[in-house]
Amino acid sequence: MGNTFGTKFKITTFGESHGKAIGVIVDGCPAGLPVDEAFIQSELARRKPGQSKITTQRKENDEMQILSGVFEGKATGTPIQILIWNQDAKSKDYSHIAEKFRPSHADYTYHEKYGVRDYRGGGRSSARETAARVAAGALAKLYLNAKDIQVNAYVSQVGDVKLNKSYQELDLTKTEDNIVRCPDPGMAEKMITLIDDTRKDRDTIGGVVSCVIRGVPAGLGEPVFDKLHADLAKAMMGINAVKGFEYGSGFEGVKMKGSQHNDAIFTEDGKVRTKTNYSGGIQGGISNGEDIYFNVAFKPVATIMNDQESIDVNGEKTIVSGKGRHDPCVVPRAVPIVEAMAAIVIIDHFLLNLTTKLS
Amino acid sequence: MGNTFGTKFKITTFGESHGKAIGVIVDGCPAGLPVDEAFIQSELARRKPGQSKITTQRKENDEMQILSGVFEGKATGTPIQILIWNQDAKSKDYSHIAEKFRPSHADYTYHEKYGVRDYRGGGRSSARETAARVAAGALAKLYLNAKDIQVNAYVSQVGDVKLNKSYQELDLTKTEDNIVRCPDPGMAEKMITLIDDTRKDRDTIGGVVSCVIRGVPAGLGEPVFDKLHADLAKAMMGINAVKGFEYGSGFEGVKMKGSQHNDAIFTEDGKVRTKTNYSGGIQGGISNGEDIYFNVAFKPVATIMNDQESIDVNGEKTIVSGKGRHDPCVVPRAVPIVEAMAAIVIIDHFLLNLTTKLS
Amino acid sequence: MGNTFGTKFKITTFGESHGKAIGVIVDGCPAGLPVDEAFIQSELARRKPGQSKITTQRKENDEMQILSGVFEGKATGTPIQILIWNQDAKSKDYSHIAEKFRPSHADYTYHEKYGVRDYRGGGRSSARETAARVAAGALAKLYLNAKDIQVNAYVSQVGDVKLNKSYQELDLTKTEDNIVRCPDPGMAEKMITLIDDTRKDRDTIGGVVSCVIRGVPAGLGEPVFDKLHADLAKAMMGINAVKGFEYGSGFEGVKMKGSQHNDAIFTEDGKVRTKTNYSGGIQGGISNGEDIYFNVAFKPVATIMNDQESIDVNGEKTIVSGKGRHDPCVVPRAVPIVEAMAAIVIIDHFLLNLTTKLS
Amino acid sequence: MGNTFGTKFKITTFGESHGKAIGVIVDGCPAGLPVDEAFIQSELARRKPGQSKITTQRKENDEMQILSGVFEGKATGTPIQILIWNQDAKSKDYSHIAEKFRPSHADYTYHEKYGVRDYRGGGRSSARETAARVAAGALAKLYLNAKDIQVNAYVSQVGDVKLNKSYQELDLTKTEDNIVRCPDPGMAEKMITLIDDTRKDRDTIGGVVSCVIRGVPAGLGEPVFDKLHADLAKAMMGINAVKGFEYGSGFEGVKMKGSQHNDAIFTEDGKVRTKTNYSGGIQGGISNGEDIYFNVAFKPVATIMNDQESIDVNGEKTIVSGKGRHDPCVVPRAVPIVEAMAAIVIIDHFLLNLTTKLS
Repeated sequence: MGNTFGTKFKITTFGESHGKAIGVIVDGCPAGLPVDEAFIQSELARRKPGQSKITTQRKENDEMQILSGVFEGKATGTPIQILIWNQDAKSKDYSHIAEKFRPSHADYTYHEKYGVRDYRGGGRSSARETAARVAAGALAKLYLNAKDIQVNAYVSQVGDVKLNKSYQELDLTKTEDNIVRCPDPGMAEKMITLIDDTRKDRDTIGGVVSCVIRGVPAGLGEPVFDKLHADLAKAMMGINAVKGFEYGSGFEGVKMKGSQHNDAIFTEDGKVRTKTNYSGGIQGGISNGEDIYFNVAFKPVATIMNDQESIDVNGEKTIVSGKGRHDPCVVPRAVPIVEAMAAIVIIDHFLLNLTTKLS
Repeated sequence: MGNTFGTKFKITTFGESHGKAIGVIVDGCPAGLPVDEAFIQSELARRKPGQSKITTQRKENDEMQILSGVFEGKATGTPIQILIWNQDAKSKDYSHIAEKFRPSHADYTYHEKYGVRDYRGGGRSSARETAARVAAGALAKLYLNAKDIQVNAYVSQVGDVKLNKSYQELDLTKTEDNIVRCPDPGMAEKMITLIDDTRKDRDTIGGVVSCVIRGVPAGLGEPVFDKLHADLAKAMMGINAVKGFEYGSGFEGVKMKGSQHNDAIFTEDGKVRTKTNYSGGIQGGISNGEDIYFNVAFKPVATIMNDQESIDVNGEKTIVSGKGRHDPCVVPRAVPIVEAMAAIVIIDHFLLNLTTKLS
Repeated sequence: MGNTFGTKFKITTFGESHGKAIGVIVDGCPAGLPVDEAFIQSELARRKPGQSKITTQRKENDEMQILSGVFEGKATGTPIQILIWNQDAKSKDYSHIAEKFRPSHADYTYHEKYGVRDYRGGGRSSARETAARVAAGALAKLYLNAKDIQVNAYVSQVGDVKLNKSYQELDLTKTEDNIVRCPDPGMAEKMITLIDDTRKDRDTIGGVVSCVIRGVPAGLGEPVFDKLHADLAKAMMGINAVKGFEYGSGFEGVKMKGSQHNDAIFTEDGKVRTKTNYSGGIQGGISNGEDIYFNVAFKPVATIMNDQESIDVNGEKTIVSGKGRHDPCVVPRAVPIVEAMAAIVIIDHFLLNLTTKLS
Repeated sequence: MGNTFGTKFKITTFGESHGKAIGVIVDGCPAGLPVDEAFIQSELARRKPGQSKITTQRKENDEMQILSGVFEGKATGTPIQILIWNQDAKSKDYSHIAEKFRPSHADYTYHEKYGVRDYRGGGRSSARETAARVAAGALAKLYLNAKDIQVNAYVSQVGDVKLNKSYQELDLTKTEDNIVRCPDPGMAEKMITLIDDTRKDRDTIGGVVSCVIRGVPAGLGEPVFDKLHADLAKAMMGINAVKGFEYGSGFEGVKMKGSQHNDAIFTEDGKVRTKTNYSGGIQGGISNGEDIYFNVAFKPVATIMNDQESIDVNGEKTIVSGKGRHDPCVVPRAVPIVEAMAAIVIIDHFLLNLTTKLS
């Protein structure tokens, strides 16, 4: 269970890393939406492996095909099934992980939970599954962009190299200008160097992805359990390797006084605005029309190239040796995943909210 | 919508702050569970207002009554409805807030979303609603305690007064020994002083609640979207005033290398253990049997006693003056709320997991 | 589980027949809906016991109170909790059923399923729970009536006394003119006599409730599993004592040829119509704008006044003797229940459908 | 929406009749279940077109492939994606239906609901989608069969040729012995003749499928809205062309007295039994251990080979001419579909019920 996200724009993903295919069914995409397949493919390209020297060198094209729910270029309102075939899965040798539990992977927990597991490349627990989320998120973005709602994520920290600028001080159109996806060129350089050095040490390192959503109208979010930021948190915490989420003032906000933190309200050109935005665009769980912004913390990737102590499926001590081609740092490729899941949360609440008031 | 949480142990809350009553329906409480009403009432007492000098001086008894689903002291498997009457709601004067939007409250967003709103005491957006969650959480705790699963939260930070000890270095049985609910007596004293000073300044301040869950068996959590920590995050972010969530190594973990962060696996007395626990007891979204721990950031309460700039429902400039009796810092009373929602997430996944494997 | 119905207009009922109270939470009632409490109460009066000589002589006022979600006469968009207290439950003596399983009741199945059961008056399995559905259905009707959608049910059969007129041949405004709720006065008389004779025999008898929904716009219903008639069927089969459901041509339709059964399409005053309506207003699971009509079969009430063979909770043979005041035939009081559940299905699909197309 | 069925064994289907493929994701199949692919394929063969002279002569192999969720022959507990490619969809000419609404099809209602529709072969509204349900149902059967729960459907009526024997008087192992799937050879012959004559008239005819489920333990079903028979009804009414559902005594039961209809309880070899079974194996919505049986009414197929009056998408009068190869009667091929959906309901409630009682 737990492979479905959303209520009105509902996605269900399937597939194992080295099985036949991965993919997603999107149920609830509004009928009539023009489906730009090239855009979906371009979003997948932002996530795919092998795109630069600081990502895994594994090559996968991640070409998707749409099997249903689109007719003559438009969504028909029926389930949209997007399929991505896996390549040359059979040729691999998995004997080194079939019987061992890799530290801080899901090997042991899947073994305990299910009794059986597809150990090839991590199976269902592999981050490869997130390609399906990116494809579904691209559909959500097509809808949101037509409503002038823009979702932009970027890398704001790698290890202890931290961008000390707020998103307002950055030019987010520059995010894609460099391979680490940090819109500040100087900091990008430092982050790239740190990741590359870490890679040469056969190690990995963590980072932070920040995200800004502009153009969200006031009124999205349900007030008690399904607060807009609660659903964003769940969406982000569901991404592989994520350890933390904060929005608006976040963890730093706990040090503030109410008199500082409260966002004074005024009107500007007939629009209700706030002077500051510590609220992060959400008050009482509902958007207020200001920018929504949040941070997502990613731990260092668990697959390292050095030897580690562990046990095998029989409980005997063993050594897990690094092998294969893996990312030294996950955040550059996580940027489109964060955007995809954010877009899915926003479209879901946008559609939910259409029936709130008596019409 | 959005007033229901959980899938197998499903709670639905209702009620406005100054309406007739608040309460909760719990659907899915296992039949046969002995229901200790005194325990539920004692949990409500930990949350109720007026319990010390650093909480609001408002007096509410929060006496609950169970209207259904319990027979001869045991849960029958049918919905358990718990009701808490509101007291003397009618006698209050709300004219000062009926037409104004209080900064950083949900006044404006409810107004935009619903068109109509019960402005009395914040209506549905009031933290009073969390009493219903505490009552439901007490039922969850009764179940978990019988399985030797213990949920313990405590205050670890108020403003910039931060407890720099891990939960292993603390004696969590001392949490209830002081009014701020910090198990370290020295730090508790500092926190209390800071809150009291803030109160005297007619201001408010934020804080952090930490939580530890011990005794969770390996295997809880669904691997993709409904990861155990994703559901914990959603549950915590749904609590009023929360701005951030992190588990295990959290935001600090992003600075670490994989070689440091990975938790080496070994066996101890036949039980699989990890040497470190940066994973926070959850790997790939599934519990591994180690302690689960996380932090929850609370912003300063928005209701302050000083004047603030805002607008009224007609968009005209106005001044919002502080009035009433409110908490200078929310974290002492948030401790039982965090525990309640954590307990609800754990019982829900516990029940979900009973059907994972072929039996 | 299983105490919630609907997705956008979501109702959750609680309560046992002889517990403290029964009631319902409605989540998703559109904000701004004027809530006419007198109308809700009048719908409850149509269902309440003791209303005529052919219903149970038990007296219950079924006075409801709204505890939340309504402010200054309008729905606020937050959960509407409606409560109905039970009267003098404590004074009764239940020893005659505490240890015995009444034939064709839910006594044995609850015992097997839950291990514990509230045997007083049937507990949760009592049809008393349907009062909560009628209250929620009244809210749904208030919404639908404002959209000119009318839901009208009536008794079309009692035992073998069957009304051989289609709904078009009847004047449905006359349904409430007699105590059996059959709009044909002559047939009503025969039905009343049959029920009264059955009552004198200390026996019970079954019947059929028919229902017509007029004014439903084309487009409601989801095409695969959540077909409009599939949700109507589930709603009706969930009512106590129901054994069958058919819509449009129903079971008789199986004898027809396609050339007879197909409803030819034409336009009338610019509106798309069909010449016949064997489809029952629903094609491919989606409303086509014609009248929706269906039949619901109710078995004879299981509680009879004569002795019956059974076993006790220890598996020993025993005799169950009739006792108490029960309905000789359930259909007159089932009319408002059928209408309530039909109204809930229609409002739910109405709201669902608002987000189908790109707006 | 509405493409998902079930809560614990949750199926989501996708695909249009003449799109690239159809298929299903099953989420919640218990981990460790041996997946017999040949069995799934054999169930699909029972549903596929072209299997006899009384079904459509269209040839489709309906070969399925499993893309995920099965490893080394066992379910892994992750989503099982089953895919069936469509054949030579592109070569067809659909101009005759692109602009016209076929009477009693979903053409007009889809057009109204979605604005766009894939008109090729009926698109999503085609009964071809039920192949996906049969594949998912085969997985459910594999689980149930291992628990000695048997689901057997058969044709009990075609037009006015009705089998007047109860299921106890029939040898259900003979159902597959003839092409109409009626276990009584004499009646089967009459049914086949009637269908064949109807086909020669270029017409279609309706029928009834009956179903028996043996071996269901007591306790399955949730008591209020999600009664076991309510979920069976919804599952059956969701099958294309279904107009009615009844279980146990059904519509005939309304004529009975309570004293006749009540099923006296006794014990036999320590097992609780009932002397009669008008309840149809379900009391108060919960199984009692007796056989569950029900009837499902199917209308005559809407596609006939004769001319019919209708309108086009512009509201102009037009003639719809029959074309293509369609079933003269749907019930022979509906037998495996009824079984599949029944099996899905039973496994879903079986899994749901595992967490009812305190363990």
